[in-house]
Amino acid sequence: MATTARAAVQVADRTFEIREFDLPEISTDDALLRVDAGGLCGSDVEQYDGELASLGVTYPLIPGHEPLGTIVEIGEGAARRWGVEAGDRVAVEPVFGCGSCRTCLVGDYRRCRRAAPPGAIASAYGAIPLAIEPSLWGGFAEYLYLGPRTVLHKLGAGLPFELAALYQPMAAAIRWCAHDSGIKVGDTALILGAGQRGLCSVVAARAAGAENVIVTGLARDAHKLALARELGADATIVVDQEDMVAAVRDLTGGEGPDVTIDLTPVATQPIADAIEAAKPGGTIVLAGLKGSASTMPEFSPDRVVMKELTLKGVFAQDIRAFEPALRLIESRKYPLEKLHTHTFGLDDVALAIETLAGRVPGEDAVHVMLAPHGNGAVAGGA
Amino acid sequence: MATTARAAVQVADRTFEIREFDLPEISTDDALLRVDAGGLCGSDVEQYDGELASLGVTYPLIPGHEPLGTIVEIGEGAARRWGVEAGDRVAVEPVFGCGSCRTCLVGDYRRCRRAAPPGAIASAYGAIPLAIEPSLWGGFAEYLYLGPRTVLHKLGAGLPFELAALYQPMAAAIRWCAHDSGIKVGDTALILGAGQRGLCSVVAARAAGAENVIVTGLARDAHKLALARELGADATIVVDQEDMVAAVRDLTGGEGPDVTIDLTPVATQPIADAIEAAKPGGTIVLAGLKGSASTMPEFSPDRVVMKELTLKGVFAQDIRAFEPALRLIESRKYPLEKLHTHTFGLDDVALAIETLAGRVPGEDAVHVMLAPHGNGAVAGGA
Amino acid sequence: MATTARAAVQVADRTFEIREFDLPEISTDDALLRVDAGGLCGSDVEQYDGELASLGVTYPLIPGHEPLGTIVEIGEGAARRWGVEAGDRVAVEPVFGCGSCRTCLVGDYRRCRRAAPPGAIASAYGAIPLAIEPSLWGGFAEYLYLGPRTVLHKLGAGLPFELAALYQPMAAAIRWCAHDSGIKVGDTALILGAGQRGLCSVVAARAAGAENVIVTGLARDAHKLALARELGADATIVVDQEDMVAAVRDLTGGEGPDVTIDLTPVATQPIADAIEAAKPGGTIVLAGLKGSASTMPEFSPDRVVMKELTLKGVFAQDIRAFEPALRLIESRKYPLEKLHTHTFGLDDVALAIETLAGRVPGEDAVHVMLAPHGNGAVAGGA
Amino acid sequence: MATTARAAVQVADRTFEIREFDLPEISTDDALLRVDAGGLCGSDVEQYDGELASLGVTYPLIPGHEPLGTIVEIGEGAARRWGVEAGDRVAVEPVFGCGSCRTCLVGDYRRCRRAAPPGAIASAYGAIPLAIEPSLWGGFAEYLYLGPRTVLHKLGAGLPFELAALYQPMAAAIRWCAHDSGIKVGDTALILGAGQRGLCSVVAARAAGAENVIVTGLARDAHKLALARELGADATIVVDQEDMVAAVRDLTGGEGPDVTIDLTPVATQPIADAIEAAKPGGTIVLAGLKGSASTMPEFSPDRVVMKELTLKGVFAQDIRAFEPALRLIESRKYPLEKLHTHTFGLDDVALAIETLAGRVPGEDAVHVMLAPHGNGAVAGGA
Repeated sequence: MATTARAAVQVADRTFEIREFDLPEISTDDALLRVDAGGLCGSDVEQYDGELASLGVTYPLIPGHEPLGTIVEIGEGAARRWGVEAGDRVAVEPVFGCGSCRTCLVGDYRRCRRAAPPGAIASAYGAIPLAIEPSLWGGFAEYLYLGPRTVLHKLGAGLPFELAALYQPMAAAIRWCAHDSGIKVGDTALILGAGQRGLCSVVAARAAGAENVIVTGLARDAHKLALARELGADATIVVDQEDMVAAVRDLTGGEGPDVTIDLTPVATQPIADAIEAAKPGGTIVLAGLKGSASTMPEFSPDRVVMKELTLKGVFAQDIRAFEPALRLIESRKYPLEKLHTHTFGLDDVALAIETLAGRVPGEDAVHVMLAPHGNGAVAGGA
Repeated sequence: MATTARAAVQVADRTFEIREFDLPEISTDDALLRVDAGGLCGSDVEQYDGELASLGVTYPLIPGHEPLGTIVEIGEGAARRWGVEAGDRVAVEPVFGCGSCRTCLVGDYRRCRRAAPPGAIASAYGAIPLAIEPSLWGGFAEYLYLGPRTVLHKLGAGLPFELAALYQPMAAAIRWCAHDSGIKVGDTALILGAGQRGLCSVVAARAAGAENVIVTGLARDAHKLALARELGADATIVVDQEDMVAAVRDLTGGEGPDVTIDLTPVATQPIADAIEAAKPGGTIVLAGLKGSASTMPEFSPDRVVMKELTLKGVFAQDIRAFEPALRLIESRKYPLEKLHTHTFGLDDVALAIETLAGRVPGEDAVHVMLAPHGNGAVAGGA
Repeated sequence: MATTARAAVQVADRTFEIREFDLPEISTDDALLRVDAGGLCGSDVEQYDGELASLGVTYPLIPGHEPLGTIVEIGEGAARRWGVEAGDRVAVEPVFGCGSCRTCLVGDYRRCRRAAPPGAIASAYGAIPLAIEPSLWGGFAEYLYLGPRTVLHKLGAGLPFELAALYQPMAAAIRWCAHDSGIKVGDTALILGAGQRGLCSVVAARAAGAENVIVTGLARDAHKLALARELGADATIVVDQEDMVAAVRDLTGGEGPDVTIDLTPVATQPIADAIEAAKPGGTIVLAGLKGSASTMPEFSPDRVVMKELTLKGVFAQDIRAFEPALRLIESRKYPLEKLHTHTFGLDDVALAIETLAGRVPGEDAVHVMLAPHGNGAVAGGA
Repeated sequence: MATTARAAVQVADRTFEIREFDLPEISTDDALLRVDAGGLCGSDVEQYDGELASLGVTYPLIPGHEPLGTIVEIGEGAARRWGVEAGDRVAVEPVFGCGSCRTCLVGDYRRCRRAAPPGAIASAYGAIPLAIEPSLWGGFAEYLYLGPRTVLHKLGAGLPFELAALYQPMAAAIRWCAHDSGIKVGDTALILGAGQRGLCSVVAARAAGAENVIVTGLARDAHKLALARELGADATIVVDQEDMVAAVRDLTGGEGPDVTIDLTPVATQPIADAIEAAKPGGTIVLAGLKGSASTMPEFSPDRVVMKELTLKGVFAQDIRAFEPALRLIESRKYPLEKLHTHTFGLDDVALAIETLAGRVPGEDAVHVMLAPHGNGAVAGGA
């Protein structure tokens, strides 16, 4: 049994240091996780680039909020509460709530503002500074401390980590695109953005009974758009080569989509186009972050009023989405394994992030995974 | 019995002519209404100013989409279908649907695009050109033609037209602020704008069980804000003298409102402030038109995402709202008569509109009514 | 072009006569349908047996409320309103509303009580007496009169009538099991009854994202339960051989289903068992008719209260369900053709009904179709 | 400061003993409440009579699940979590959840099955056996132990306990009649039963905008029905003297109520009548317990199906209802003080229960309160 854990500590913008930490002592209500895998997400790129400083994220800290692994030590109370024991393989929810405030009591623990340790901006793995004991709060490490309020999910026996590591984009897609969008069997769904969340949204939209699923992407996303079609999208639109609004009208008999979900980063034009393309009375789910300072000069409130549209901001997800996401992944009904393109070891965390960001020439990444106990870069999927 | 009807025909921007029309022949499925009263609404000001040309409204036509009056002639089929007879006093819904298209079949006749006569931009009284027979399509006239698809509501015996004439702003308030906003008993409501719809929204919010109702207005709206408090608002904010966001926080214990309804014309800053002030997970109903060309440069999609807000555009209303609006007016539970400030005759229609627009010095108008069979301007309320 | 139509007129309990009728004259707003096919439904058996007399159904009349066929003559107004022309193949909705009453205006035309011709119990094809002109109101005939308020749906070019004839059970399944049950991606659905509606509900539940679909049936329904599994059911329960409540608990890890839909005829025990098996907070959709006089002595309101269950009665369906049903059938994503087992000609309508009712030894019927222009009994599927 | 607490311990059916207990030691996460008041509820009568034995309630235990009082000692963690300190006056929610299970995480802690101490049937004050330390788990005592997961609400300074003691029936009414019934501004509400919950439901229905509120009761409830009218009911029906279904039809223009709420104990006929009287598409909230063994032989599933009714079982309530209930009580907008009729001391707990049950001749009780630190019976209201 190990007594220390190596971790990738971000010490400055785009700068990691590998450091070694003593493993924490576990008492009744907490546990220790051997981190076997961790998905990377768009916000990991933003954190790497230092763009989250405006939100209050400070260095040094161990990033990584999509950890999966094996319970190596667990207190009696935690074991009973979570229904797991040492040796179990689990996926960890990124956010935990205090369990007692009004927000938690009504089921919105993903929005709890009281569980954050003093000095942290949120009660979220990967966002808690190193200075807060026991430091091992991030998934970019060999071991992760699991505090008493953690929510976790046991993994089925045969599920490889490469596939399980999709639990967070898949949960986001289920909450945003299926559960909260109001989509119904027979509807048309327009998905803006063909990244890992967009591709998982194709699966979520199909699972929810969408009859017609349209996905947009850039010309450079050709491999992702092809994958979208393979996952069941009925049509794809290359927005830097086609008139998106006109194309959507063509594809929907002039009616427009019932439900649109925006997952595009940075750009706001997709939202303006979505408003133009939407069916009167339709819903547009806003999930893509544009950079916290950015505004959308082209936003026309009158179009929203006269078309009676609903714009619905969504952020993070919770057990209502993580459970069906994991079951859907385990069901193997969709070829989700095709999303996984890269696995990297702990020492290559910067390369992993750069790969996901599309900054590594020649690499067409979709889903990138970190395997902290692995050895160096492993290109190629599951 | 009259054989002709005088009507105020808009022939150009800010220009009316009084013309005389033969009364139409009524057959089985239609009817003729003696117009006893008609409310004026903000869009009457816009139509007067010529600002609706961009929507396709053309001259000459008879405006007026809030008519009330007495059935003077009615076909057998219409009488049976509508449950009324000659002599009955009724309020007319502004919009009618075709009854057969998908939009109508699912209950959204207020959005029907197939009932508009060829040459008209909408199937709405006050928006159908004179050229379309039988010309008497607007409420600014002594008589109104009621086509077969009209939806109308019988008025209670003792209800004066000055009070009944509030049926449209009250219906808007019920749909937008009570039915479609998701407001619940115990919630806090923030109402942006203290015009007739804002004041009716105070009543609707109270009726829906809001525990805390906050209304905003300009310094020059002091009489309207006083009326808001009289109707049951817990607090009012003068937005050109106070920091709206800070004031709302103070008034809500730092939480923000559950539901906000924007009824302000032209300005977009109120929406930006509403996003800032709203409770996480809250709803902002967008109902105020900003001028169809205008955009909102300060709109931040990220704020909507990170606070998980819902923005809901609403436009027009239907029987679901007109029925409870009329019953609420008839119940006399709220001192709605205080909203009525001015009544004008047909010849003074331009003055009536200018008064509502606040362009007549010394006149503090809230709700302005036209009485086409009256004689000239009648200042003062019911 | 034919000038007369043969029709199967029900003149007494379990007694049909083939009669010949002059084809009606078609004017502006109506049409004439050549009936190419018609599905039979459980209520056709009840009507045949005379069990609907208590509802006010009287003889003689032409039954048949699931007609499909080809428009042979159509008025100009009807053509414009419905968007079809002579030669088009269509499916006809069974019920039509008046389009003007409150029920219709709010989108519930399936519940309209004002469109029924005087003397008829409902505005529904197959339920209007022969005495009402032009008599051809039922699908068990070579031609069907389409009144002005009919709602119909154009069929895709390549869709055989055997498959299209499933539009009504499929629409019922979509409304009851997918749209109105509140089912969500990841839920468990329990479907009580393995008839055509139960089997279509398997498809609807899958389409809506149910992760776990359980179907119940009797031992004599073995072929239907096998078909349920083929259509995607995860498990089936033989209720006359197994303890249903215990079996459901086993299949749901002790949790019970989120959503249950009761489609069983006559028996009430399935509802009692469903209440016992349901997850706390779950929904039970009641769709199976038990015979209008029958009561359910075993109903325990306290169980409903203490488990906080919702019981939701549903009856008939409308355009919201017919549209996605037809598109789902046309998509060919599910092997729905396996449901079709028998086709009969007009002269064999009694045999067709007896076959559906399971009264013809050796015939395992699921979906039975009438082909009024065909020649005698045609055993076997599409 | 006291060191012991007197408590009314139920030792057998209809048998209390006053016993004395040492006050428990309070650590970081719990607290001690001086019980100043406690409302009695219908289930206190059932517990008194021994009718809850079938649910697993065993003697001896201290009943009382509606306690209000003053914090006399509180741990640091509890004070921070609950936002209260010693000296604060609070109302205690009857039920507490574990905070960690799926049920709690999604906001349904009122249904949590994991927080119950071993040996208790529920995690609810008044239902935990004496044998479980520290014994003081019920409101029929001078002091109450507040465990770490308690949810409580601070009372406004000027609110007398007689009024505050209505927080539970008022919260039930808000959840059942306003929040969960789907009632909208303009609707008609039918309230079955004129006990404390029925009367609070009149207030809740009015608060939610019901235009027409009808209440039923028995002839012997004349004082309650009079109070219902005083609280704003538009009409009352004496069900043992009138035909309820006919009366409701008369009062609703033949339409039936949009929303019905059943609060009657024991009898099931009210539910059958409610099904008969309801508007097609309407909702019937089931909240009255009929005795856990009882069934409803007159229940007709077909009526529920053909009228497309929704029957919704509800049980208990949570912070979503307790917060608005207390604010509504504090607002003094409704003359709720008229509900309070009797206050009793601890030694008279049996008499208090008999009075509420209507078994004490000459006493017309509506809301009965226990004041454990008072001295004997105090007849008459606030």
